[in-house]
Amino acid sequence: MNIAVLGTGMVGQAIAGRLHQLGHSVVVGTRDPEATVARTEPDGMGNPPFSAWHANHQGVTLASFTEAAAGAELVVNASSGAVALDVLGLAGADNLAGKVLIDISNPLDFSRGFPPSLFVKDTDSLGEQIQRVFPDVKVVKTLNTLTASLMVEPKTLGESSTVFVSGDDAQAKATVVSLLESFGHDDVIDLGPLETARGTEMLLPIWLRLMGKLGTGAFNFKIVR
Amino acid sequence: MNIAVLGTGMVGQAIAGRLHQLGHSVVVGTRDPEATVARTEPDGMGNPPFSAWHANHQGVTLASFTEAAAGAELVVNASSGAVALDVLGLAGADNLAGKVLIDISNPLDFSRGFPPSLFVKDTDSLGEQIQRVFPDVKVVKTLNTLTASLMVEPKTLGESSTVFVSGDDAQAKATVVSLLESFGHDDVIDLGPLETARGTEMLLPIWLRLMGKLGTGAFNFKIVR
Repeated sequence: MNIAVLGTGMVGQAIAGRLHQLGHSVVVGTRDPEATVARTEPDGMGNPPFSAWHANHQGVTLASFTEAAAGAELVVNASSGAVALDVLGLAGADNLAGKVLIDISNPLDFSRGFPPSLFVKDTDSLGEQIQRVFPDVKVVKTLNTLTASLMVEPKTLGESSTVFVSGDDAQAKATVVSLLESFGHDDVIDLGPLETARGTEMLLPIWLRLMGKLGTGAFNFKIVR
Repeated sequence: MNIAVLGTGMVGQAIAGRLHQLGHSVVVGTRDPEATVARTEPDGMGNPPFSAWHANHQGVTLASFTEAAAGAELVVNASSGAVALDVLGLAGADNLAGKVLIDISNPLDFSRGFPPSLFVKDTDSLGEQIQRVFPDVKVVKTLNTLTASLMVEPKTLGESSTVFVSGDDAQAKATVVSLLESFGHDDVIDLGPLETARGTEMLLPIWLRLMGKLGTGAFNFKIVR
């Protein structure tokens, strides 16, 4: 499948690398490709620059948000929550229309330090906000509840764990579930309509505190039932 | 131990019954004991009245909130979130002072129907609100993330699952962890200070949607790591 991954951070790298490994044609979208390539410093979280990752993943193309989205059959929003609507606006409503949009972003507000709070609370969700602004895209919220490496290689935990999908379009969710299964996810719970993203986005407060407690992001929720 | 359980609903019944079974001396606190005993109709959720449960648990004493708290070494807040501060006020700050308070309540707002939203969001928690109003009590937030029957008999799930504790007093948390282990909990994560209750209280939005999806409350979170 031709897939655009919007965002060059850890999540974008993990998703793009795994999709390419699985045989998909992958374009990573960024605001300014030249600036992204030129950056040689680690980001604010100490992660290596995109260029270092790209050197080992030359089969993945880098393009502007607009170009990436225009050429894709399916789009992944791997940008951070604070800029998600902005990034999708740059990708262009026309370039997104009719397509499946996997939304991984979380509405994290770092303005008051760590742990961040949420800038969308439980009576709405960032996934729904995106859907309202881009009504012609088929938003499927998923993968926002675990760390980037486990999103795409869940089996490295050594035990089955759970991911969730939320969305209003059944066919779009089926496409996304197939992709998740190809990543190695063996317990995908379809929570129902996109409104249920209010549940998964609100997992971040405990996720962040668990990361603090466990000293690692290498954990995931399993719904035991 | 002499334990007061404030609240006569499903959570109060489950906790009181299990503690009594484990050999503790248990008093259930209610607003008006005579009215509680006289009630013969199911509650708003269709649960049997307290009197039906009490007929099978006569070793558990019923008393006013005040009396229950006054005689207890440890107090369990099993009231619903909307009335928690009110209930604890009736129990009386003097009767709570210096004691461990296990807070199970969730800040659920049913005023706009189902699923309820939260009346305290992620920049505060009901557990912290209780601690601020009753600074001399040792609040430990726990058990608010699973259904009543699993709080006290987690092994009925057939697989290990996780409960969390949050609190500012290490000794109080140790007491609570012992009680949790006596219930059968084999994976208790001490998240840290009471502030971390912001994480566990925010689990309710997904818990409620999972209950809707799975058609049962008989599930729990396991932190796979």
